[in-house]
Amino acid sequence: MESSQRECVSVATKDVSLRELRDRLAEFAKLRGWEQYHSPRNLLLALVGEVGELSEIFQWKGEVGRGLPNWSHSDKEHLEEELSDVLLYLIQLADVCGLDLGQAALSKIVKNAKKYPILNNPTPRSFNN
Amino acid sequence: MESSQRECVSVATKDVSLRELRDRLAEFAKLRGWEQYHSPRNLLLALVGEVGELSEIFQWKGEVGRGLPNWSHSDKEHLEEELSDVLLYLIQLADVCGLDLGQAALSKIVKNAKKYPILNNPTPRSFNN
Amino acid sequence: MESSQRECVSVATKDVSLRELRDRLAEFAKLRGWEQYHSPRNLLLALVGEVGELSEIFQWKGEVGRGLPNWSHSDKEHLEEELSDVLLYLIQLADVCGLDLGQAALSKIVKNAKKYPILNNPTPRSFNN
Amino acid sequence: MESSQRECVSVATKDVSLRELRDRLAEFAKLRGWEQYHSPRNLLLALVGEVGELSEIFQWKGEVGRGLPNWSHSDKEHLEEELSDVLLYLIQLADVCGLDLGQAALSKIVKNAKKYPILNNPTPRSFNN
Repeated sequence: MESSQRECVSVATKDVSLRELRDRLAEFAKLRGWEQYHSPRNLLLALVGEVGELSEIFQWKGEVGRGLPNWSHSDKEHLEEELSDVLLYLIQLADVCGLDLGQAALSKIVKNAKKYPILNNPTPRSFNN
Repeated sequence: MESSQRECVSVATKDVSLRELRDRLAEFAKLRGWEQYHSPRNLLLALVGEVGELSEIFQWKGEVGRGLPNWSHSDKEHLEEELSDVLLYLIQLADVCGLDLGQAALSKIVKNAKKYPILNNPTPRSFNN
Repeated sequence: MESSQRECVSVATKDVSLRELRDRLAEFAKLRGWEQYHSPRNLLLALVGEVGELSEIFQWKGEVGRGLPNWSHSDKEHLEEELSDVLLYLIQLADVCGLDLGQAALSKIVKNAKKYPILNNPTPRSFNN
Repeated sequence: MESSQRECVSVATKDVSLRELRDRLAEFAKLRGWEQYHSPRNLLLALVGEVGELSEIFQWKGEVGRGLPNWSHSDKEHLEEELSDVLLYLIQLADVCGLDLGQAALSKIVKNAKKYPILNNPTPRSFNN
């Protein structure tokens, strides 16, 4: 744990990759004997639970501006934690499904670029339409 | 679009970072004039929409094994796309909130390591408890 | 099917109860041989899928006023359908779990009334806190 | 509050209607000055938060059988509360949107009956397809 803390400090300024997070999470689960619980649907429901936590942060706030004007430091820290929880379960879900999330994301961006050519779109359309 | 396709091919085998995806998505939205629609709550609801699409893939399947045994190639491709859509909106949400998702995720892993010391946990506990 | 349509017309102006919907849905599933697929987690994921569809209706709209000012009739019909889909899966989930959703909801309102006594609360608090 | 408790006891065995719950919730919010916070998107995000709480109950359980075999009484009570929270926010969301959830649900069942005629469907299909 000490070492992982030092490690985190040491990487605090470098770019973070999806595979690095995937590998850290796989080791985290293995060391705790949690792999047996990490079935795709268990992880998916855990992800949904975290999306709920994320939504609770925003639920009574009305519209929120870019950059979170007037949010306290602790509110922003809480948001960082919930965003992270969603990401960590998403990465683990992709991993137990045997999929490369980073490559899939790059491919999806290219697919979206073809689907939404650059012109004056009046409104955005959901990427899954 | 052509260039982004070539770029994607060129990076197809390298590790993908959260900042790279963030920057590509920011450029994607800027080139299409979509930034005006990317408020935190709009992106959050778009994320929830994609989590719904992801859940629909698993909804009638009963328990699913690690590695998705017996899933067709096209089912796996569909899953890759929905996992990607969730990731892409999550990254954009963090970005418009002015937060560094990768650093936040590393910090959360360290925090979780402190919260769940390595011993024989009988069952996993949700990271947000 | 014809009969159920006539039945619906006949009840079109009366109050609708949760048990009536539960019983109609149970018959609906039984007549189609769908009970075998209606496990709690399958229905929960189907519910999450519908919540995603519901969120997609609101995702690019920014703040929306009470009564949906300026929404078209077809947008309101679409919203009615998605709200219904969430309700129908929620009722079926409670049913396969052997729980009485209506009684549970009444009890929760009473519990909330105790938890949030009537005074000038500055902001609402999530009922699950 | 006392009166509402007595009222709940008095209705404990009768069927519960959606309009009754809608009216109780509207009064509940009005008495606490919460109406100002009950915009459609605030309530939608609160609903998503409750769906997350509901999912957390199921997230590490693997497949769960109909009737929740081997669940403790307290686990079932917890589930009743989370199912209720989802229902209560769904009813309030429909209400602030000016929609009649019960009539919409009956209409959706009829529409689904037309969409899925009675025959041996090999697998269920999501009602929103």
